[in-house]
This record gives sequence, C-alpha cells and structure tokens, in this order.
Amino acid sequence: MPTKSTFKISRFPVPELAELPDDMRARILAVQEKSGFVPNVFLALAHRPEEFRAFFAYHDALMEKPGSLSKAEREMIVVATSNANQCQYCVVAHGAILRIRAKSPLIADQLAINYRKADITPRQKAMLDFAMKVSTASYAVGDEDFEILQRHGFSMDDAWDITAIAAFFGLSNRIANVSSMRPNDEFYTLGR
Amino acid sequence: MPTKSTFKISRFPVPELAELPDDMRARILAVQEKSGFVPNVFLALAHRPEEFRAFFAYHDALMEKPGSLSKAEREMIVVATSNANQCQYCVVAHGAILRIRAKSPLIADQLAINYRKADITPRQKAMLDFAMKVSTASYAVGDEDFEILQRHGFSMDDAWDITAIAAFFGLSNRIANVSSMRPNDEFYTLGR
Amino acid sequence: MPTKSTFKISRFPVPELAELPDDMRARILAVQEKSGFVPNVFLALAHRPEEFRAFFAYHDALMEKPGSLSKAEREMIVVATSNANQCQYCVVAHGAILRIRAKSPLIADQLAINYRKADITPRQKAMLDFAMKVSTASYAVGDEDFEILQRHGFSMDDAWDITAIAAFFGLSNRIANVSSMRPNDEFYTLGR
Amino acid sequence: MPTKSTFKISRFPVPELAELPDDMRARILAVQEKSGFVPNVFLALAHRPEEFRAFFAYHDALMEKPGSLSKAEREMIVVATSNANQCQYCVVAHGAILRIRAKSPLIADQLAINYRKADITPRQKAMLDFAMKVSTASYAVGDEDFEILQRHGFSMDDAWDITAIAAFFGLSNRIANVSSMRPNDEFYTLGR
Amino acid sequence: MPTKSTFKISRFPVPELAELPDDMRARILAVQEKSGFVPNVFLALAHRPEEFRAFFAYHDALMEKPGSLSKAEREMIVVATSNANQCQYCVVAHGAILRIRAKSPLIADQLAINYRKADITPRQKAMLDFAMKVSTASYAVGDEDFEILQRHGFSMDDAWDITAIAAFFGLSNRIANVSSMRPNDEFYTLGR
Amino acid sequence: MPTKSTFKISRFPVPELAELPDDMRARILAVQEKSGFVPNVFLALAHRPEEFRAFFAYHDALMEKPGSLSKAEREMIVVATSNANQCQYCVVAHGAILRIRAKSPLIADQLAINYRKADITPRQKAMLDFAMKVSTASYAVGDEDFEILQRHGFSMDDAWDITAIAAFFGLSNRIANVSSMRPNDEFYTLGR
Repeated sequence: MPTKSTFKISRFPVPELAELPDDMRARILAVQEKSGFVPNVFLALAHRPEEFRAFFAYHDALMEKPGSLSKAEREMIVVATSNANQCQYCVVAHGAILRIRAKSPLIADQLAINYRKADITPRQKAMLDFAMKVSTASYAVGDEDFEILQRHGFSMDDAWDITAIAAFFGLSNRIANVSSMRPNDEFYTLGR
Repeated sequence: MPTKSTFKISRFPVPELAELPDDMRARILAVQEKSGFVPNVFLALAHRPEEFRAFFAYHDALMEKPGSLSKAEREMIVVATSNANQCQYCVVAHGAILRIRAKSPLIADQLAINYRKADITPRQKAMLDFAMKVSTASYAVGDEDFEILQRHGFSMDDAWDITAIAAFFGLSNRIANVSSMRPNDEFYTLGR
Repeated sequence: MPTKSTFKISRFPVPELAELPDDMRARILAVQEKSGFVPNVFLALAHRPEEFRAFFAYHDALMEKPGSLSKAEREMIVVATSNANQCQYCVVAHGAILRIRAKSPLIADQLAINYRKADITPRQKAMLDFAMKVSTASYAVGDEDFEILQRHGFSMDDAWDITAIAAFFGLSNRIANVSSMRPNDEFYTLGR
Repeated sequence: MPTKSTFKISRFPVPELAELPDDMRARILAVQEKSGFVPNVFLALAHRPEEFRAFFAYHDALMEKPGSLSKAEREMIVVATSNANQCQYCVVAHGAILRIRAKSPLIADQLAINYRKADITPRQKAMLDFAMKVSTASYAVGDEDFEILQRHGFSMDDAWDITAIAAFFGLSNRIANVSSMRPNDEFYTLGR
Repeated sequence: MPTKSTFKISRFPVPELAELPDDMRARILAVQEKSGFVPNVFLALAHRPEEFRAFFAYHDALMEKPGSLSKAEREMIVVATSNANQCQYCVVAHGAILRIRAKSPLIADQLAINYRKADITPRQKAMLDFAMKVSTASYAVGDEDFEILQRHGFSMDDAWDITAIAAFFGLSNRIANVSSMRPNDEFYTLGR
Repeated sequence: MPTKSTFKISRFPVPELAELPDDMRARILAVQEKSGFVPNVFLALAHRPEEFRAFFAYHDALMEKPGSLSKAEREMIVVATSNANQCQYCVVAHGAILRIRAKSPLIADQLAINYRKADITPRQKAMLDFAMKVSTASYAVGDEDFEILQRHGFSMDDAWDITAIAAFFGLSNRIANVSSMRPNDEFYTLGR
C-alpha cells in the first residue's frame, strides 16, 4: 500500500489499487505521478466508487476551475474551516497545498490556528469571516454578510465559490473525522 | 419558470431551462415528469453545471443506492440534521419525501423538531444520535459511538452511509441557507 | 380518552375528564366544542389543578387580550422560539393555530425552521429577533435592542408582550419536553 | 414608592399602589406587612393585572404547596437556575429566602456560583442536575434522567415539581432580565 | 488549621503552617494579622512552594501596583469573570474585597450575576465587556475592541491591565475549581 | 530587535534589550544562547518587569521541575489546549518544543488539530481529556474525572500538574491573543 506509515489510514475498508475500476486507478496513479505519493483520501474513499467519483468531481469543480479567487485563497478557506471542524486530514494535507500555492511556509499554520492573526490582506480576512460563518452558522448568513463581501470587491460568483468550498470541505471534514482518515506523513513537511 | 411562487428561489442566478446543457435539462424534465413540478434545488444549482452534476451524482450515490438502511431511514437522517442546521429547503422538501417513503403524515415534523420524541424505533433513534453527532461534533466521534451502532445491528457499511448522508446534507444545508433557496410550495402538503 | 392516538400523551398521569373539577372540565369541553378535539396540553396539565388554572390564565392574558401585536404575530413568536427549544408539542400545535390566524399554509413551517427566511415583514423579523434573544440570551437584552424595536414602530407595551410571550412559552416548552407531551394528530394538517 | 433605592426598579411603568385593583393592593400590603418591605417584583409586574394574578397564582402553586421537596430545596432550584440565566433579581431575592429557609448563611452564594460545590446532599445535587438540564437543555431530558432521580428517591410528583419550578423561574428570569428588574436592597443582607 | 469550617478546603494536600518555608509562613502570618484569618487560597496552594511564590508575585504585580484602574475596578474584573467561570472561591473572596474597596454592599453580587445590570459607570461597563471577551473569546479580540476602550478613556496600559487580570484569574478560577477550593466562611459577610 | 520578521510582534510596547533590568536581560540572553534566537514571548512581556518575572517563574515551576509527567507530555497539554483557545503563539512555539521533546515530527500538528486522533497512548489521551476539561469547563470537573486519571495510573500530584499547566497556558493564551503576539519564524520548522 503506498503509504509509509504503519498506522491504519481509515476505520473503513481500504481496497488494493489493483482491485479498483480503471478510471479510479488511473486517477490515483496520475496523482501519485505528480505528487510522488498517493494522498490517503483517495484510498480511504475508494471502497465506494460512485461516491469517490462524485466527491472528486465536486472537488475539482470547486478547486481547479478558473475564477477570481486564487488557488491559494481557496486553500485558505479549506485550512481555516477544517481546523474549526478539528479535521486532521484536511488541515495537514491542505495546509501543505496552501504553503506551496501561497509560496509561504508560515501561512497554513497561522490560518489553521487563528485566521484573524494570519499574514493576510483585509480582503482575505473578509473572505474567511464569510467562510467561517458558512461553516459554523450558515442559517444566519444574510444580506449584511454579502454587503461586506461586496465592499471588499467580491462578486456574487466569488460568494458562491466561498460558500461552496466551505460547504464541500465541511462534508470532507465530517467523513475524515468519522473514518479517522490519516494524513500521509509527507504532507507535514511539504512547502516548509 | 416552473414555480408558482412569486418569491425568488435563490439569491444567485437561476438560468432558464432552455439555456441548460442537454443532460441537465433531461434530468430536470425527468424529475418534473415524475413529481409534477421541478424542485427548486435543480434550478438553484443549475448556474454551475459541473457542481450540479457532481452534487446530484453524490446525492444519488447515497440516497438511491441499495443498502440496509431503508429509503425512509435515509430521509430521517436528512430531516433531523437539516433542522439542526436550520435549513428551510431541506427540511420542507425532504420532509415531504420522508412522509411519502415512511407512509406517515406525522414523522417528518416530529423528527425535524425533536427526533428524540418521534415515533421511531430505538434502532432508528441510535442511527439519528450518530447522525446528529456527525453533523454537530464529528471531531468527537470515536470507538464508543461505533459500538452503540453495532449493538443496534448496524454494520460498518451502514455507519458509512449514515455518516455520508449527514455530511452530504450538511453541505446541501449550507448552500441552501446561504443562497436563501426557497422550497416549492408543493412540498408543504405532499404526503400529509 | 379524547385522542385517537395509541401513543401516550405524557409521562405523567393523565386524569379522566370525569374526575376533574367542574371549572376545568367546563373549559376543556368548551375547547373541544370549538376545535372538534381536546388539545393534549389540557389533559397533560390537568393532574395539577392549581397549576393548570394559572397556566391557562397566563396564556389567555397574553394570547387573547387586545393589543397592537396581531394574534398571528403572537403565534409567530411561539412557533419560532419553540423550535429553538425543540418543543414538539408547541411547534405542531401553535404551528396549526398560526396557519389559521395568518391564513397562510406555509408560514408556520418556514418560521419554525428558520424565521430569517420566512415570508414576513422586516418589522416581524425585528420582533422575532427580539423574541429569540429573550428566549436564548435574555441576560444580554439591553437598550440597543429596545431601540431597534422602536425603530420598527413597536411601543414599550409591545416589547413587554413579545418578552412575556417568549418567556411564557419557554416555560411551556420545558414542561412539554420533560413530560414528552404529544401533539394531537389533528394539529398536523389544520390550516394547510 | 416603597423602595429606598434611587434607582429605577424596571424599564417598564411602575404603577402607584393606590392605583391598583383591590385584590392586588391587598396582596402587596400583606407581603409588606410580613417582610417589612415590598419586593420589587410585585411592583414591576403590577402594570399588567391579569398577568400579575396568573404569575403569582402559578408561583404559589409551586412554591407554597405541600409536597416532598422542602421549601428550602425549591429555593435551591430557583437560585441555581437563575444564576445560569444571569438573573439579578431572582438570585438576590431568592438567595435571601433560601438562606432563611435553609437556615444557612452560605448556601445561596455557593449554589448560585457553582451548585456542584455547594454544601448539599448527593440527593440535592441530583435534583439540581435535573433542574439545570430542564433549564438549559430540556429537549434532551429522557428516561435516563428520570432513572437518576428515582435512584435518589424522588417520585414522579417530585420530578414534576422540579421541572415546573425550573420552568417557571426560567419565565421569571427572562421577564426580570428584559425589564432590568432591580432587587430591593434589603434582600442582600437578609439571612446572612 | 486556621479555618472554622469542618469542610475540607481542597482535594489536594494542605500543609501545616509550621511545615512551610519561612518566607511563605511570614507572608501567610502577615495576611492573617491584617485580615484576622488566613484566606484558604494561601493554604491550598502551599503544597507547591515554587508555584505559590510565582502565583502571589503575579497577583501582587497586577492587583497591588499603581495604575489608572482603581483597586475596586480591578476587583470588578475578578468578580465578573470568576462567576462566568463558576469559581466559588474567587467570587466569594474577591466579592468581599470588592465590597470593601468599592464601599458598596451591593456591587459584588450585582456584578457576579450580571455585570450589565450593575450600578457601574458606562466606562466600567466597557471595561467589563472587554474583560469578559478576554475571558471567554480572547481569540476574537481585535482592533475594534481596543477602539471601544479608547473611546472610554482607557490607555494601552489599562488595556494590558484588564487583559492580564482577566487572564490571571482565569488561571486562578481553574485551579480553584479543580481543587474544590473552599472560600472561608468569613468572606461571605465582609463588607455587607 | 532580535527577530527577522518585519511584522510587529505585539500591539503593546516592546522594549529594547539594552533598556531591560539586568536579571531580565541575562535570562533573555541565556535563552538566545541556547536556542539561537529570542522567542518573542520574552520581548512581548518585557514591558512589565514584575509580571515578566512572575510569569517565567511560574512557567519554570511547572515545565522544568521534576515529576512523573514527561517533558513531552507537558508540552502535549500546552499544544492541545492552546489550539482550543486559538492561540497562534503558543501552538507554534510549543509545537516546536513538543516535536523536539517527543522526537516526533508529526505529533504537534496532530495534537493541535484533534488530540483524539493523535499518535498517543490511551494514558496520554486520558491526560488530555482532563486537561481540555480544565481548559474549557473547569467548573464541572469532579470526582469521576479524578477516577479516570487514577485508572490510568496518574497520581494526585500528576492531576495537579495537568491542571496547573492547562490553567497557566490558558493565561498565556489570553495574553498572547489580546496582544497579537507573533511566533518567531524559526519555530515553524524546528524539529520537523
């Protein structure tokens, strides 16, 4: 199994790569090719092929698509909301991606612990205030929250992106927490 | 636009059916054919085709697939967790589906308000205790929670289903809350 | 017993109508005459005659008296705060009354789930913001909350009404929750 | 006005004793005769005669009636739950009554601040655990809570009393908080 | 042991005065000389001499030093935050000191229960709003909180004092709560 | 100033090393000698010499003294509770120390995000459960919590250590949060 750790990576079944449908194996091998290892989330979700496909299609639709939020900013949303949800996998894995995308070795730890005190712009702080409200009290999001976004130059399209990313990783955080999904050791030092 | 209401169904753009890609329009027309109306969630998500496709693929993978949880039980999870998240669209729409699937006019309102006092079995109560913990405190889910599920006869596969349904509708609740997605008037009386 | 349900209506003793003091029985028969059934709250509280009398005297003083809040608005307060307290009896029973008084089949479900997104006026939204603060954080109610009410045209008399209704149904919610008071089946469909 | 304080005793109107209906004035004079002063709650509620009568009828039905809970124990419930609700009037006034009824100068302050560390019996601790759950999370009260009460020798009648007292003072706390009802200076030193 | 109570003053060991190092015994005797009794905190911390010395050095640096906050105002911070932490020892002991320093028999109980309704100035209310935020949500303290302090005439030095006092008594509250540290009976009536 | 960062290290005054009293400068130079840099906490607290001395005396009494908790275990308490308090300085600085003392590059991030899922022993998990309860709900710590510690082999002395460390860093977290104390860049990579 392509992880160095002797720890289990999930409480749920983890299939062998060889057993997987072709499209899933191809996707996983492509990631391995690019990153040098297989992020455990691919293995931990693989026992449910339909859900795996939908999960990564949704992920890519939000995180890989063009849009005015930079890729680093999208990862900021992931890291800040995932620590609020105490999700080890997402903070560690996306913290690594954030360090690389923001070209900053400090930003991920700062954002995870307390985004209000991170080295970010006021616009990014407003983005994260909104994302955290989506994550923790979406029932109370109202016109006044959209007005703050607008004052910082965000469009309605950006507001949707922030919302959908916070919401999607809320899903991811819950599955990772319940399955005790383990971050790969490699993530801890990437980009530092 | 296929809704009788004069109220907006979302703060975000709602495309005309005619503008949509064929696969999306086909799906929406199929639902309309079956239900007699187009549930607003299809229209409110349609401005983002990739996300629309992933969302419904994920939804169907969880809610339509075979499995030992009955379809009514899956809807119970949706209704109980969605009221905890104060999501008007999901409680009203899935409350209707639950009434139909459970063949009970009372169950949806009972579960939405306080599932602990609903007309359900102890096994279903344990299922909902777990789902609510996934929804509100997934970081604290541990061995002892799985043991309770097991004592009520749930398998690990069932535990995954409960988790994934609570997590997926947590995503759905957040998007519906932020977009002020409006439930169709038709849902309020279905199955009563 | 005047309920069709085979479920218990309370964990506490429920006396027979014939055993009750004349004034209580007369009141209950009058309600039955008017509604076509005896709401279970009358039966569930009847084992304590003095408390029964005080409860309904208080109820009537708040809900039946003249005043600038409409009867529908008073029921809005009940429904919104009762769902925050997860009280099945009060949401279901007063939801029915609200539908009738507001002549709206949708309003009760909307308010119960998330009053911020219900079809109400900004003035009614301000009324419910105040009522919810009374219900969940009365210690923090201060001058600024009264100023908001005033800006929406509410008098001090109205402020007292909102407060007292939220407070009284907080009492009612707690007794109904602890006693597992069951709403009559009739309430679920009234006014839809 | 029968209070020495120069501070307002309520944000709402406080009528003159002479303006009140006879039954209310008689009740207030009787309290003054017995206590040496008029507790401000009588004056602060007097602008609403019907509510005044219902409030005190309910109060007396719970606090003055015979029953297996001692009068000091009932006051314990009031003091502990009222501090949880941060109600100045109820903690100060009922703290005084508790000191007198329990013949203990320490008990009221101990209970208000942290009932878990007060000089009370394990049975009284169980009573207050239940009362606090009624006050803060009544939706979750279930069979297991009743079983704990039963193990400490409480009857179902006692459980109702605990519930109703916690619920009634929850109402009282909210009205006192919103009206900024001021405790009489006399209460602070009574029974010390 | 210099306490009249027959109750234990801590779950942890309480050394005899005679066993203590000279500097600690001298400090304790000086307090006894001045107050007429030995506050239990000195005895409850004495089993750890190094921590005892650091604790009281810190305490004195904050509470005895010159500065623009009056000594009564510093005690206000202690009393309000300690009740939020439900710390019996600190509310009772520092409530006594506050009554003496503020020359007010009412202020301590008022502040402990709900500082928003105490007989204090708007400036003191702002001081306590800040202190309570430090105590309960320090992660969210930001520029806007400092601006409010400034508008009420507080300097940055004052802001540090408020912060450090709230933080230090947060430490004290936790140790007192875990050790079940018992306030001396004498404190309850001092200054009333 | 001995930090490479161009960011401010505190909202409060930061004195020059040359201005400090000899004992403080000596302590700071000794740390610099040992670590290769001056941790910002020494500079951020230096404007208050008496508090500085008490703070570090208390710190050393808890973190440097002999005792059955290993030094790594003490740092585990700091890291887990400091992330609950969202304290950037303490999580980053003590995370570094923990990695070094535990000789593990992964442990600090794991513990900060969700200690329940970290690579620790059940005994350490029990230690952290207790520490987190001290940090977030010390009022509720009771006999049953001590019994759990005891079952895992902890003595009363250990219980005090856990309590005092969680309480002391609660103080530290609040001061660091309010002052926006900035962790040195060096800490982020130490021990990885």
